[in-house]
Amino acid sequence: MERPRHQGMAKNTYMRLWRLPLICLLWEVAMIVLFGVFVRFGPEADAHWEEEKREMNLTSDIENDFYFRYPSFQDVHVMIFVGFGFLMMFLKRYGFGAVGFNFLLAAFGIQWALLMQGWFHSFKNGKILIGVENLINADFCVGSVCIAFGAILGKTSPIQLLIMTLFQVTLFAVNEYILLNLLHVKDAGGSMTIHTFGAYFGLVVTRILYRPNLEQSKDKQGSVYHSDLFAMIGTLYLWMYWPSFNSAISEHGDAQHRAAINTYCSLAACVLTTMAFSSMLQKKGKLDMVHIQNATLAGGVAVGTSAEMMLTPYGSLIVGFICGIVSTVGYVYLTPFLESRLHIQDTCGIHNLHAMPGLIGGIVGAITAAAATEDVYGKEGFIKAFDFTGAYRTRTPSLQGGFQAAGILVSVLMALAGGTLVG
Amino acid sequence: MERPRHQGMAKNTYMRLWRLPLICLLWEVAMIVLFGVFVRFGPEADAHWEEEKREMNLTSDIENDFYFRYPSFQDVHVMIFVGFGFLMMFLKRYGFGAVGFNFLLAAFGIQWALLMQGWFHSFKNGKILIGVENLINADFCVGSVCIAFGAILGKTSPIQLLIMTLFQVTLFAVNEYILLNLLHVKDAGGSMTIHTFGAYFGLVVTRILYRPNLEQSKDKQGSVYHSDLFAMIGTLYLWMYWPSFNSAISEHGDAQHRAAINTYCSLAACVLTTMAFSSMLQKKGKLDMVHIQNATLAGGVAVGTSAEMMLTPYGSLIVGFICGIVSTVGYVYLTPFLESRLHIQDTCGIHNLHAMPGLIGGIVGAITAAAATEDVYGKEGFIKAFDFTGAYRTRTPSLQGGFQAAGILVSVLMALAGGTLVG
Amino acid sequence: MERPRHQGMAKNTYMRLWRLPLICLLWEVAMIVLFGVFVRFGPEADAHWEEEKREMNLTSDIENDFYFRYPSFQDVHVMIFVGFGFLMMFLKRYGFGAVGFNFLLAAFGIQWALLMQGWFHSFKNGKILIGVENLINADFCVGSVCIAFGAILGKTSPIQLLIMTLFQVTLFAVNEYILLNLLHVKDAGGSMTIHTFGAYFGLVVTRILYRPNLEQSKDKQGSVYHSDLFAMIGTLYLWMYWPSFNSAISEHGDAQHRAAINTYCSLAACVLTTMAFSSMLQKKGKLDMVHIQNATLAGGVAVGTSAEMMLTPYGSLIVGFICGIVSTVGYVYLTPFLESRLHIQDTCGIHNLHAMPGLIGGIVGAITAAAATEDVYGKEGFIKAFDFTGAYRTRTPSLQGGFQAAGILVSVLMALAGGTLVG
Repeated sequence: MERPRHQGMAKNTYMRLWRLPLICLLWEVAMIVLFGVFVRFGPEADAHWEEEKREMNLTSDIENDFYFRYPSFQDVHVMIFVGFGFLMMFLKRYGFGAVGFNFLLAAFGIQWALLMQGWFHSFKNGKILIGVENLINADFCVGSVCIAFGAILGKTSPIQLLIMTLFQVTLFAVNEYILLNLLHVKDAGGSMTIHTFGAYFGLVVTRILYRPNLEQSKDKQGSVYHSDLFAMIGTLYLWMYWPSFNSAISEHGDAQHRAAINTYCSLAACVLTTMAFSSMLQKKGKLDMVHIQNATLAGGVAVGTSAEMMLTPYGSLIVGFICGIVSTVGYVYLTPFLESRLHIQDTCGIHNLHAMPGLIGGIVGAITAAAATEDVYGKEGFIKAFDFTGAYRTRTPSLQGGFQAAGILVSVLMALAGGTLVG
Repeated sequence: MERPRHQGMAKNTYMRLWRLPLICLLWEVAMIVLFGVFVRFGPEADAHWEEEKREMNLTSDIENDFYFRYPSFQDVHVMIFVGFGFLMMFLKRYGFGAVGFNFLLAAFGIQWALLMQGWFHSFKNGKILIGVENLINADFCVGSVCIAFGAILGKTSPIQLLIMTLFQVTLFAVNEYILLNLLHVKDAGGSMTIHTFGAYFGLVVTRILYRPNLEQSKDKQGSVYHSDLFAMIGTLYLWMYWPSFNSAISEHGDAQHRAAINTYCSLAACVLTTMAFSSMLQKKGKLDMVHIQNATLAGGVAVGTSAEMMLTPYGSLIVGFICGIVSTVGYVYLTPFLESRLHIQDTCGIHNLHAMPGLIGGIVGAITAAAATEDVYGKEGFIKAFDFTGAYRTRTPSLQGGFQAAGILVSVLMALAGGTLVG
Repeated sequence: MERPRHQGMAKNTYMRLWRLPLICLLWEVAMIVLFGVFVRFGPEADAHWEEEKREMNLTSDIENDFYFRYPSFQDVHVMIFVGFGFLMMFLKRYGFGAVGFNFLLAAFGIQWALLMQGWFHSFKNGKILIGVENLINADFCVGSVCIAFGAILGKTSPIQLLIMTLFQVTLFAVNEYILLNLLHVKDAGGSMTIHTFGAYFGLVVTRILYRPNLEQSKDKQGSVYHSDLFAMIGTLYLWMYWPSFNSAISEHGDAQHRAAINTYCSLAACVLTTMAFSSMLQKKGKLDMVHIQNATLAGGVAVGTSAEMMLTPYGSLIVGFICGIVSTVGYVYLTPFLESRLHIQDTCGIHNLHAMPGLIGGIVGAITAAAATEDVYGKEGFIKAFDFTGAYRTRTPSLQGGFQAAGILVSVLMALAGGTLVG
C-alpha cells in the first residue's frame, strides 16, 4: 500500500513493524471476548423466530425485518466501502491507500459500533440482540468516521487512524444516544449524528494535525485523470444509493417510501445548481471536477433529518437547490480561507460536503418538524412519524422543532470536544 | 471537464460563461414552482398511509409498493447513471465528459419526466401523486435520452444537450401515453417506448448534426485500454441489472418474477452469439471489444416488451440468439454503411444496440401477445397479464398483437418527427 | 481482447478462426433445444400464479419467492460477473481478457447449470420448473467455475475454458446432488459445494497444465497500479455482497437474516487479521495488496456452510479471525511452495482464498451442526434449520455432523477426480 514517504520510515521502523499487527490482533481478540459475553441474535434472526412470529401475530416470513431493510442495508454497505473509499481516491498518491485504509478502519469500526450502539439501544437482559437494523447503524457510525477521515487524508498513519476510529465511534454512540433517546429527536438519515458530527470532528482533528509544509507539496498531490474517474465511481454510488441511506432505518411503510422520494428529488436539484455555480465561478466557465464529485451529494446530506417527514417533493427540491450552491461556493471560497487563515487543511473538503449541508439538514429538520400538523400527517400518521407516544405523548410540533435544534448544537459541541480530545 | 477544443472557445466566451449557469438555475426554479403546484406524495408514501392501508385491506406494511419495487428501482438507477455513463467512456477524449454530461442530463431530465409522465399517468384532483413507480418511470424516460446521447456523443455542447433532453422527455411522455393508454399496449421493459424511440430520435439528430470533418479526426477518438475497462464496468452493470430493468414496473407477483427470468435467459444466449460472430467477422478471429461491450446487451433490449409475458425460457434464448447476431453484424457492416452513405455518425452504435433490437423486441412482443391463450395463462392470469378489463374486456390476443405492432410504428414515427424537430 | 502471444497464433490459425464461433453457436442451439424440451416457468413465475396463490393459501403477491430472494440474487450476480471478473484483473496483461473470458464462461455455464441442477432438483412431470432460486443456484455453480478459472488464468484458450466449464458444471451438479440429497447435508453458502470443489478442481487442472517456462515470464505478468485498483473493485464487491451470497438460498425468515449477520461479522474480523499478518510477514511492515485483495474474503468462504446455523456473532468472529491468518500465511508461504515443489501454478492463489477456507468452512459447519441442541434452536427451529423431516426425522445433530464431514470428503474427492479427467 502506498504511504507517504516523509514520515521517517527508518527512524521508528522496528516499532512500526509490530505496532499495527499487534493492535489489530489484540483488538480483534477483545472483540471476540466482548461479542462472546454480550452479542446474540435478535428475535428476528434467532432460530426461535417461529415462536416469535406467533407471538407477534405475523402470518408470513416476509414480515421479518430482514425483508424491509436488507436491500437498503446492502446499498448503504456499498456507499461506505466503495462510495467513500473511491471518492477519496482523487489524490493520485493515495489512491490505493485511501481505499485500503478506508477498508481497514471500516471493518475495525463496525465491530466496535455494534457493541457501543448495542449497549445503548439493543440491550436486553444483559445481552445485545442484533438484527439487520444494527448492521445498518454500525455502517452509519463508521460512515461518520469515513467522513472525518476525508479531512485528514494523507496526514496520519494507519495506527493513528485506528485510534481515531475507536474514539470517534465511542463518542458517536454517546452523541446518538443523547439525541435519539434523551432529546427524542428524529434523524433517520443522520444529518446531525453522522454528517455534522463526523465533519466537525474531522475538522478539529485536522486543525490540530496542521503541518505547514504540507501546503507546499500540494501540487504533487494533485489529481490525475484516471484517479478522477475512480473518484467519480465513488461519487455516483453515493449519489445513486443516497435514497437508501436516508430511508434505511425509517419506520416501515410510508416513512421509508417518503424518505427515498425526498432524497431522490433533493439530489436531482443539487446536481443542477452545482453545475451552474461550478461553471459560473470558474475561469472560462469550465466545470470543476471536484465540485461535481462532491457538491452534487450535498442534497442528500441536507435532507438526512427531514427526508422521512412530510417535506414534500418541492421542499426537497428547494433544499437541494440551496445546498448545491452553498457547497460549491464553499469549495471555491471557504476551503482556501479555512486553510490560509484558520490553518484547517480539509483534504477532501468535508466542510462543504458534510458540515454545512449537515447543519442545513438539521435546521430543515427542525423547521419541518415544527411545521407538522395533524392535517398534513393524519391523526395516526402524526403520532407514528414523530413517535409521540409514552412519555412524549404531549410533545407539540414546535417543541419537537426546538429539541431538533438543540440536537444540532449538541452534535457540534460533542464533535468539537471529541475532536480536540482525540487530536 | 474535458470538452472538444474545436468549438471556438474564444469566440462566444462571454455568452457561454453565463448561458449554462443561467439555464440550469432558471430551469431548477421552474421545477420548484411546478412541483410546488402539482407534485404531492402518492397514498403509499404519504403519512396518511395507515388509513390507506385500512381502506385497501392490507394487513402489513410490507405490502406497500415500495417493497415490491425499490430493489429494482435502485438497479435501474445504477444502469442509468453508472451503466450508460461508463459505457460511453470508451472514447478516450470524452471519458469524464461522457459520465459528467450523462449525470447532468439525467438529473435534469428526471425532474421534467416526473412532471410530464405524472400529468399523463398519475394526475388526480389537480395533483400528481408520486411513488416509487414514478421514480422508475422517470429513470426509464431519461434512459431513452441517454440512448440518444450515445449517438451524438462528442458533437454537442452541454446546453444543446439540455435542450434536447427537454424536448425528448416531452415527446417520450406523449409517445408513451399514446402507446400505453390509447393503444393499450404492453411494454414494461420499453423495447418500443425507450429503446426504439430513443435510438431513432438520436439517429435523426446526429444525421442533422452531421459534420464531415469529424470523420477525419476519428482515429484520435479511438479508445484506450483503461477507458475500455471503465466501459466494461458500464457494460457489466447494464447486463447484470437488465432483469431488474425489464421487471421493475411489471405487475406484482408472477409477472415481475417471469420478466426477470426471461431477461436472464435472453442475455445469456446473447453473449454466446455475440462472441461467436465477433470472432467470426474479425480478422484473425480476435474478439472485438466494442462488440462485447455492446452487442451482449441486445438480448435485454429485445425482450423488453415480451419479458413479462409467457415468452418461456427457450423463447428468450431464441430471441437472445438472434439479437447477438443481428447486433454484431450491425457493428461490422451497418455502422460504416450508415456513416459513409447516409451520413449518420452513430458514435456508440446505438442503431445496433437499441434501434434494431428494440424493433425486434416490439415484434416479439406483438407475436407473443397474439399467441397468448387462456390455456397457457390460466383464466385469471390471461386477464391480468394483458389487463383485459373495463373497456378492453373484449379485446382478443390477435387484436392485441395488432395494437402492439401499431405501437412500434407510432414509436418510430414519433422519434423521426421529434428528432427532426429538435435537430 | 488481449491474449497471450506464445500460443502459436500462426500455426493453427485456420482452425482457431472457426472453432470458437462454431462451438458457441452449436452449443447455443443445443441449449435452445434442451430448454424447449425441458424448461418451463415454476409455479411462482407462471401466469397461473393466481390459482397457485389460492392453493398455497397466500394472501399477498409479496409472498412470492421472488421478493424473498431477488435482491440477494442481484448481489450474487454482481459477485460473479464484476466481483470475480475484476478480481482477476490484477495481472496487467490479462486485464480485459480476465473480465471478458469470465463473462463468456459464466454466460455459457449458467445455461448448462440451469439444466443440470434442474434435472436433479426441480424436475417434475418431465419438466424443469425454474424460478429465482434456480437462477441463484446457476450463478453459484458458475461461481465455482470462476474459482477454478482463477488457478489457470493465462494458461488456456477460450475453447479449453468452455470445455472445462462444461465438465465442471456437470460434475458440480452431481456433487451437489450427492451432498444435498443423498447425504442430506446443509451448505447454503457453498463452502463445500462451491469453494472446496471449485478450488481443488482448478488446482488439479493447473497442475496438469504445468508449464515450466511460465515461471520465468512471471515478472512480466506482475500487476500495475491501475490494474490493482480495478482488482480492488472486484474485492470490495465480493466482500460487501458476501452476506447475500451466504443467505441467498437459505430458508425464508430467520435463516436468511442470520446468515447475513454471521457473514458480516466473519468478514469484518477477517480484514483485521489479514492486515495484521500481511504487515507482519512483509519486509518493512508494508501491506501487500494481494493479501488485501484476497485474504480479506476468506472469512466469507469459511462461514458458507454454517452461516445459516446458530453460529452466533462471536463464533463468526472467531472463524473470520482464523481464516484471515490462514489465508495470508498461505499466500506468503504455501503458494511459492506449491509452485516450486508440487508444480502447481496457482495464478490467483485460489488455494488460499477458496480451498483452505472452504475446508475450514466445511469443518465449522460439521461442528456447528453436531453441537446443535433444541435448547438453542427451539423445538420448531431445530427441525426447520436442519430439515429433520420425513426420512430424516430421526437424525441426531451428531449424526448430521458426521454427514457434514463426509460431505467435505466427497467434495474433495469429486474435485480431484473430475479435475484429473478434465485436465
